[in-house]
Amino acid sequence: MRTQIAIIGAGPAGLVLAHLLHRAGIDAVVVERRSRDYVEGRVRAGVLEQGTVELLDRLGVGARMRREGLPHAGTNLAVDGEMFRIDMQALTGSGIMVYGQQEVMRDLFDAAEERGLPIVFEAEEVQPHDIGTDRPHVTWRRDGAEHRLDCDFVAGCDGFHGVSRGCIPDGVRQEFERVYPFGWLGILAEVPPAAHELIYANHERGFALASMRSAGRSRYYVQCPLDDRIEDWPDDRFWDELCLRLGPQAAAGVTRGRSFEKSIAPLRSFVTEPMRHGRLFLAGDAAHIVPPTGAKGMNLAVSDVVMLAEALAEFYQDKSAAGIDGYSARALARVWKAERFSWWFTGLTHRFPGTGPLERRLQQAELAYIKGSRAAQTTLAENYVGLPLV
Amino acid sequence: MRTQIAIIGAGPAGLVLAHLLHRAGIDAVVVERRSRDYVEGRVRAGVLEQGTVELLDRLGVGARMRREGLPHAGTNLAVDGEMFRIDMQALTGSGIMVYGQQEVMRDLFDAAEERGLPIVFEAEEVQPHDIGTDRPHVTWRRDGAEHRLDCDFVAGCDGFHGVSRGCIPDGVRQEFERVYPFGWLGILAEVPPAAHELIYANHERGFALASMRSAGRSRYYVQCPLDDRIEDWPDDRFWDELCLRLGPQAAAGVTRGRSFEKSIAPLRSFVTEPMRHGRLFLAGDAAHIVPPTGAKGMNLAVSDVVMLAEALAEFYQDKSAAGIDGYSARALARVWKAERFSWWFTGLTHRFPGTGPLERRLQQAELAYIKGSRAAQTTLAENYVGLPLV
Repeated sequence: MRTQIAIIGAGPAGLVLAHLLHRAGIDAVVVERRSRDYVEGRVRAGVLEQGTVELLDRLGVGARMRREGLPHAGTNLAVDGEMFRIDMQALTGSGIMVYGQQEVMRDLFDAAEERGLPIVFEAEEVQPHDIGTDRPHVTWRRDGAEHRLDCDFVAGCDGFHGVSRGCIPDGVRQEFERVYPFGWLGILAEVPPAAHELIYANHERGFALASMRSAGRSRYYVQCPLDDRIEDWPDDRFWDELCLRLGPQAAAGVTRGRSFEKSIAPLRSFVTEPMRHGRLFLAGDAAHIVPPTGAKGMNLAVSDVVMLAEALAEFYQDKSAAGIDGYSARALARVWKAERFSWWFTGLTHRFPGTGPLERRLQQAELAYIKGSRAAQTTLAENYVGLPLV
Repeated sequence: MRTQIAIIGAGPAGLVLAHLLHRAGIDAVVVERRSRDYVEGRVRAGVLEQGTVELLDRLGVGARMRREGLPHAGTNLAVDGEMFRIDMQALTGSGIMVYGQQEVMRDLFDAAEERGLPIVFEAEEVQPHDIGTDRPHVTWRRDGAEHRLDCDFVAGCDGFHGVSRGCIPDGVRQEFERVYPFGWLGILAEVPPAAHELIYANHERGFALASMRSAGRSRYYVQCPLDDRIEDWPDDRFWDELCLRLGPQAAAGVTRGRSFEKSIAPLRSFVTEPMRHGRLFLAGDAAHIVPPTGAKGMNLAVSDVVMLAEALAEFYQDKSAAGIDGYSARALARVWKAERFSWWFTGLTHRFPGTGPLERRLQQAELAYIKGSRAAQTTLAENYVGLPLV
């Protein structure tokens, strides 16, 4: 089998890239370790930047998002129970869209099927080869048989635990990592959200987030110790703690109900450099992880592959290698700004074990400053709705 | 001896307060442990916020500052040798004034003498008493004799090492402190400054600052380990290191010369709460210390005593205790925002021992973000020229 671009991984990065290349008339095959149901079923992010929204429209996969997604013009911060709102639309001219990654994936898979984009699911032992040469290929096993895909380039879109990143040799690859000393306990429940927009709460007892997936489905989080177990958090305890941290004003809007998903996730900042080696490109979680506080994960995957598709189109259409040679630096510049924002927003809203009362006061002072400064609100808003692709 | 307000300390906080009270028709006596020459000779800050400049004008002590001070409309950041400018005037409508604290003190002392403001110099063992009652008093020894000043209120303007703060009982007083793991090695030299405006440099090898006191006197700093000694830094080494950190563009403007002052200062964030107990008020360094990065120290002392003078005028003229009761909370709200800014600006520009390559990349990303964002530049500028008194 032969194609121009072998895409490893059918998550948001891989699928959006496949659609972008399809529109550019570039052949690609997506090779995915899991089934479609598995990929589509993963509970992930739910906030789309303006640029992501517009891209899904341009790809012709935005219709259901426009019908069912929840456009938000602002977001709320609660500090020790007192709330204030950041009017992102007024400050930046943009808003965000609440639309779960699961829904995005379903739309991307449906459109891929319609358009006949080739996706190989349940491919075991996927492995890129010869990325240092002009003739790379990818192999995998499926139904007991060995498969080989020859290609011009490999796009490693296979996530943090994928095989692609490790193909960049140790002497070339530099990894940057920070693991945060707490986790997020998250639940999904079939109850209407606490408020029309999100509420990020900094409380003496820790961070909380009131989010949603739709008008009838709420997504809530509370910061918890990393060694807490799900069994430590029966629903009643979760709702009590959530309401306490949100404060009375926001808690008044909370409808309690049975959780149908409950999990504890660690928070990590991670970047690998470079994002290209030879004929291999990395995109999305394969190259970087952000703590979820800024809702940047899926959006970064999308901006990576927009840049990558532009670079590849330049290579095939204009016969210029400038785009692919510049991809890593261009992508990393935006990645690091999003890492910076996610790290800052995490630091602003969470309690860090081992820090003292001075750090708490500095958080409160920064939140008070943001509350009173249009410029500070604009910096938060412009990062939240997404910095431009430059 | 009897007065309305006993002011302990004749630094910027105490002297500005004395002038403010004089204008309001409130009697005050300043009691200072050192001589005028000693106080006036201390090398300290040199950047005045817009509000401080305007206050000195209002007090009628701004004429020489207007003649000899250097108004700056902007400031520069150098990142690994590449410079960009923040146009504070365009972003906020305000600038700053470079005019050394030594000059400010001289103008305040000269005017105090002209106006007959009572200042007791070289008062030993100054001690406030009975601050929990309506009849506090202050005692000291001078020329072997005991002195006593009865008053309505005591203003503790006696700096970080002064006696006033300790008069607030342990159970009432809460102190917040952070000592930074590096110092600033600073020099003064009779050479023209490297550039018209200040240059804050973040370099792989550490922070550097190119500042000045006048058109012919430069003030330079480099971050250094806390256990370095002055003898480790002969002038040649200092100039070499400074130029390296500033980068070729800024270094081209550096004129080398013999340093006539050289010292290593630690960096500290410190706040005590509350800033009032009974009949004692704290103001300036007696209540809080900032790292010098944001040039906030003297400016905070001035904004504290502006608030305090307003509160005392309200007490005597309007017979209302609302101002003095609200002084601590009002002053602390602004103090914490300045502490936040100084801590942030220090974190943005210094190398922290023990942090790794991730933190370095986050600094670089934040500086790149600031370079490209009007909103981010505005947050820096509005803090630098001074947040409003609210």
